[in-house]
Amino acid sequence: MLTGFIPGNAELYRCALTHKSLVSLSAENLNFNNERLEYLGDAILSAVIADYLFSRYPECNEGFLTKMRARLVSRENLNRIALKMGFDKMIILPGKSVPTKKHIYGNALEAFIGAIFVDRGFNGAKRFIIDKILHTFLNLDELECEDMDYKSRIIQWGQKNKKEISFESYEMTDDANLQPAFASTIQIMNTIAGKGRGATKKEAQQHAARQALNNLPC
Amino acid sequence: MLTGFIPGNAELYRCALTHKSLVSLSAENLNFNNERLEYLGDAILSAVIADYLFSRYPECNEGFLTKMRARLVSRENLNRIALKMGFDKMIILPGKSVPTKKHIYGNALEAFIGAIFVDRGFNGAKRFIIDKILHTFLNLDELECEDMDYKSRIIQWGQKNKKEISFESYEMTDDANLQPAFASTIQIMNTIAGKGRGATKKEAQQHAARQALNNLPC
Repeated sequence: MLTGFIPGNAELYRCALTHKSLVSLSAENLNFNNERLEYLGDAILSAVIADYLFSRYPECNEGFLTKMRARLVSRENLNRIALKMGFDKMIILPGKSVPTKKHIYGNALEAFIGAIFVDRGFNGAKRFIIDKILHTFLNLDELECEDMDYKSRIIQWGQKNKKEISFESYEMTDDANLQPAFASTIQIMNTIAGKGRGATKKEAQQHAARQALNNLPC
Repeated sequence: MLTGFIPGNAELYRCALTHKSLVSLSAENLNFNNERLEYLGDAILSAVIADYLFSRYPECNEGFLTKMRARLVSRENLNRIALKMGFDKMIILPGKSVPTKKHIYGNALEAFIGAIFVDRGFNGAKRFIIDKILHTFLNLDELECEDMDYKSRIIQWGQKNKKEISFESYEMTDDANLQPAFASTIQIMNTIAGKGRGATKKEAQQHAARQALNNLPC
């Protein structure tokens, strides 16, 4: 059983699995499809993940938490997880049509979360999301480092280790081609830990942060 | 008392009211400010409002629910409500600084919701949001009609009254100036209820929907 419990309202779960194309041509029961539940499930999923990350990373700032949440509940991840959970076999579509867009599975998963929330409340939805999705299909340690830019990584390191990180950037005059150029230094607890240059302030800071990361003990 | 209950953790609420500018220069306690709680409160507020609208408008589609939620929790509304609740007197800022940006009050309100969620759980936060914010400061009937375009209004009417609404649009040849022009008809239960023309399909549909709305019984 997908949910791990006996559903209190089978009709609700059937609605969560009904794609809108099945009913769009009928004047009756226009809303018996999973779009409303998807809207609800999407909000509940965001709240549960926000809560989970808030507790799991007490040292990290809201920028990191927001980024991690976006990565966890990305369309790509939801579609992948929904397929692994078998939503492609459960979804109710008209006739023998085979969907070409994977996002309908991710949407059905969100709608299913909405149905659990209506049936079992916030804590029921939370248990499903954490046990059946997060702990089963997602690796937080991997996602933590995935694509994280150098500046974010050094700031996160600073927060974990209670070290103040600051950047100083200034524009340089480049007589050769009159293009703007920037230089940045990064300080860890007021000691210069890295230097960088770049065509933009952001690029200069990234180079400085990379140098500092290379010199860190961990 | 703002919450209507005795807080279980006073430090948490103090954190929710502490603006980041108070602590950004200190290496210790870098996260003792309301940004993390704001991130959490924002997600909880969205989920509670999503749930509330889902129950209150059982006939309306997710497009309407999404639009209503965005309108309810708009930055402007949150800032206005936070000021009315007295967050400008409660927020903790460095020295005698007076904030110039109103959004810091809306952010503090979100952080306060985050603190209630941590202290009292989802249902505690839900009670606060519905009783102290929604029922006290927001008028849903007014917001329902605010700025709603004609097409959305007629579609919503159709959903409430179980009438199928459809549009037919086609491009017209305009020999006079060779600009594209469009014509649309709107059908209510397969009967033409309005006609419109415009420079774009969207504009033509809006004109057709307005004509149909003018002829509705309600």
